[in-house]
Amino acid sequence: MPARNATDVAAQNGAKQVKALLFDVFGTVVDWRGGISREAAAFGARNGIDRDWLAFADDWRGLYQPAMEQVRAGNRGFVRLDVLHRENLDQLFGKYGITGISEEETDHLNRAWHRLRPWEDVLPGLHRLHRQYVLGTLSNGNIALMVNMARNSGLPWDAVLGAEVTRSYKPMPETYLGSCEALGLRPDQCMLVAAHNGDLQAARDCGMKTAYINRPYEYGPHQKVDFEATSDWEFIANDMVELADQIGCP
Amino acid sequence: MPARNATDVAAQNGAKQVKALLFDVFGTVVDWRGGISREAAAFGARNGIDRDWLAFADDWRGLYQPAMEQVRAGNRGFVRLDVLHRENLDQLFGKYGITGISEEETDHLNRAWHRLRPWEDVLPGLHRLHRQYVLGTLSNGNIALMVNMARNSGLPWDAVLGAEVTRSYKPMPETYLGSCEALGLRPDQCMLVAAHNGDLQAARDCGMKTAYINRPYEYGPHQKVDFEATSDWEFIANDMVELADQIGCP
Repeated sequence: MPARNATDVAAQNGAKQVKALLFDVFGTVVDWRGGISREAAAFGARNGIDRDWLAFADDWRGLYQPAMEQVRAGNRGFVRLDVLHRENLDQLFGKYGITGISEEETDHLNRAWHRLRPWEDVLPGLHRLHRQYVLGTLSNGNIALMVNMARNSGLPWDAVLGAEVTRSYKPMPETYLGSCEALGLRPDQCMLVAAHNGDLQAARDCGMKTAYINRPYEYGPHQKVDFEATSDWEFIANDMVELADQIGCP
Repeated sequence: MPARNATDVAAQNGAKQVKALLFDVFGTVVDWRGGISREAAAFGARNGIDRDWLAFADDWRGLYQPAMEQVRAGNRGFVRLDVLHRENLDQLFGKYGITGISEEETDHLNRAWHRLRPWEDVLPGLHRLHRQYVLGTLSNGNIALMVNMARNSGLPWDAVLGAEVTRSYKPMPETYLGSCEALGLRPDQCMLVAAHNGDLQAARDCGMKTAYINRPYEYGPHQKVDFEATSDWEFIANDMVELADQIGCP
């Protein structure tokens, strides 16, 4: 698609040597708050438990960074996100006074993260981007989580990279650098697509190109940051379809 | 698809708890001998070099096991297959008296492994199997090699596993066990699909299910083993379409 004006030319130059688009997933690709709260509510209904399931989802997500920080700080060896999610879920059951749940039911709820659904722009956008670029995940989610999610929703990943492949959690540099290296590409041949300015800054610090997707609704009423791009990322788009337009993927 | 007779019932029971089919790739999925010899011949034509390129392909493949053995024996740390292929190629250039080749041209030839094509039954068979099973690679090839090959030929992998993810080379148990674990599955929920009896035995020893695909033409006139199944693998098929028939994937 020919560039239509100077801005487009500049934007397309930003992607010129890029071979792979690597995606943050939770919040950028899938709606974790809607998905987890709905699954938790269904879990509650099955077990006759009435709680504020949106708050439950927020609390579960709230334990995510502190749990990974133990690994990043070197206080424990690398463990998969499924394990951290489960530890956090057990903790939340205590906080919410939920007892007597079977192992099978608990494991099923823990795997709600494997069943999260993409925002509605994602599949149309990714299918366009996929014609021209290698698409991969650069997420803190583990391989099984990403693979099951992709099969469940038809996400067209060529590669599942990120935390488990590099045995490190973002925003540590090795997560970004190791993911590019696994594709046999230099960091400047890879672009991180994310809804979080901090994630993009860490990727840029590693030499990657960057694309910001605006998801100001990710945290619902509790969103505190990432209402807009706070730096001059190579691309800044409202959704994946707009990103495909900007990059010039018909 | 309903089982048609006692043999089918037994075969389908073999796959009953299987969730993922994991594939050996070189020889089982793609024709390395045809692909490498054709690319080497094209390389020769471009550079005005006349050699026996089928022998060159056989020799290149012949250096594969000894190179990995250095890693398996612990004489060197894990290195990706792209690196081993390149070291072996440099060695072959010496043996064949090939000199004065640019880095770009050498790297392009080394990446011929990324461009190998599947046997003609593979895409039709895999697309049927993909409807019911998670499909992944359990190959000694590295991630970039597998990802580029898949994009090039449309191989529908959900996950690229094997050597680089587990940082070990088949037939070490950790390559099989680590690949199943990355999918969050027990070994008996995963089935290795391979044209090599030795590979299947190592997978069975780890508790995986097994499916043999007959490729008695893989090594051309130099084939010495794997003319037929030498054990009672759960499935024994002439190609991937027959495997889909036997498993009951319409």
